[in-house]
Amino acid sequence: MPKLNIVKIGGAIIEDKNKILPFLKNFTAIKGPKILVHGGGKRATAWAEKIGIPVQMKDGRRVTNKETLELITAIYAGLVNKTIVAYLQGLKCNALGLSGADANAIEAEKRPVESIDYGFVGDITKVNIKWFNQILNQNIIPVCCAITHDRNGQLYNTNADTISAEIGKAMAKEFDVKISYCFEFPGVMRDIKDSSSLIRKITKKSYHNLLLNNIISKGMIPKLHNAFDAIEGGVNEVAIGNIKMINQAIPHTSITLR
Amino acid sequence: MPKLNIVKIGGAIIEDKNKILPFLKNFTAIKGPKILVHGGGKRATAWAEKIGIPVQMKDGRRVTNKETLELITAIYAGLVNKTIVAYLQGLKCNALGLSGADANAIEAEKRPVESIDYGFVGDITKVNIKWFNQILNQNIIPVCCAITHDRNGQLYNTNADTISAEIGKAMAKEFDVKISYCFEFPGVMRDIKDSSSLIRKITKKSYHNLLLNNIISKGMIPKLHNAFDAIEGGVNEVAIGNIKMINQAIPHTSITLR
Repeated sequence: MPKLNIVKIGGAIIEDKNKILPFLKNFTAIKGPKILVHGGGKRATAWAEKIGIPVQMKDGRRVTNKETLELITAIYAGLVNKTIVAYLQGLKCNALGLSGADANAIEAEKRPVESIDYGFVGDITKVNIKWFNQILNQNIIPVCCAITHDRNGQLYNTNADTISAEIGKAMAKEFDVKISYCFEFPGVMRDIKDSSSLIRKITKKSYHNLLLNNIISKGMIPKLHNAFDAIEGGVNEVAIGNIKMINQAIPHTSITLR
Repeated sequence: MPKLNIVKIGGAIIEDKNKILPFLKNFTAIKGPKILVHGGGKRATAWAEKIGIPVQMKDGRRVTNKETLELITAIYAGLVNKTIVAYLQGLKCNALGLSGADANAIEAEKRPVESIDYGFVGDITKVNIKWFNQILNQNIIPVCCAITHDRNGQLYNTNADTISAEIGKAMAKEFDVKISYCFEFPGVMRDIKDSSSLIRKITKKSYHNLLLNNIISKGMIPKLHNAFDAIEGGVNEVAIGNIKMINQAIPHTSITLR
């Protein structure tokens, strides 16, 4: 099967032109079909404060109200997405920015209200494989932001790691998919202050042990949950590590079933 | 030649869900290939005030500085564009939101600095006809915002009327193009307060007479300039009038060469 690289970048790198440009140059050097998925950066928080949109919390979880959804649609699908697309075009890489609503790329439904009503947060129900294939066949690079829609006129906030995993699972029928979750750390670490504590490989079994022993920091758990979901859904490989890992053989965390 | 409808909507309608939804329903009812072009709405001004981005004027003209470009990229390409695309998807119309950077749809260069430096304002140099044709052939409806790029990593602010005219001229080689400039008025009027003063038809010759006699209000001149530019560039028909004209045979202003 042909190889498909899905690369997800997070907040910190996006805000820094000195980081994002070298990263995008490395990204364009990846051979074959590839998809970039991005988070939002810190701009959303900064603007929210200035515009006066309060951060709404319920039971300690952030809730996406109407004003927050408008703001992140502006920042994620507009400012961040188009800045990245323009940079990629500058590198002669034919990028196409997408929210889930564009060409009905990613459908979602409102997260069911159980103990918490998360507001305008969407759980993905369908990835438009046909569309992604059409675009990739034209050598166009999809650049996906963390916005989905319900095909009934409503946009939703959806985690970018989850978007990467769901696109990966959907495309795994036709591609040998590798997902790279890139951030500022070398990977999953036992001690965030000690780079030598990097865990090179996590299997489903070792993951449970790490969880039981409280070794995984809270922030990493959703990322690892997405990683195992992807692997169990047919994705070939998930790597978690520093942005440099997409071109260099540097130590990182590799997620495997066994 | 097949017919192509390009419909441009302006600010006021976008902010009002009770206006935009009926309009989009009418838009989807237009048969055959169609392209929607939209302006920004009033949100950009409201947010600019709150975020503290000052309106920069030079010789009485608005200038697009870096902060303003970021804001309008967020609002135009993000909030407004994706809201419209999601609404169209809700109407089962397969829309695809585009800035000029996406798939290199619309290239521009910085407006030359003569007496005024307009900042990040782009003059269109190329419309990607091949891309628009590919998309239209897949029955996908392009929804274009007023952002272009220079293919060297820089985004630009470009007037939405001009974007409509340039797409129209480029597509006129393969389509019988009609451009509809929709706004809140019935068309070009001798007296903005008197709807019976609507000018039903403006030719190149009558336009010069209207200008000479100071009958055209200042705000209408760039729109008419774009309209004649389109007609002279091969566009078949330009209509200026109320949003209802796209489906109803209501009085409006028709721009023709002779």
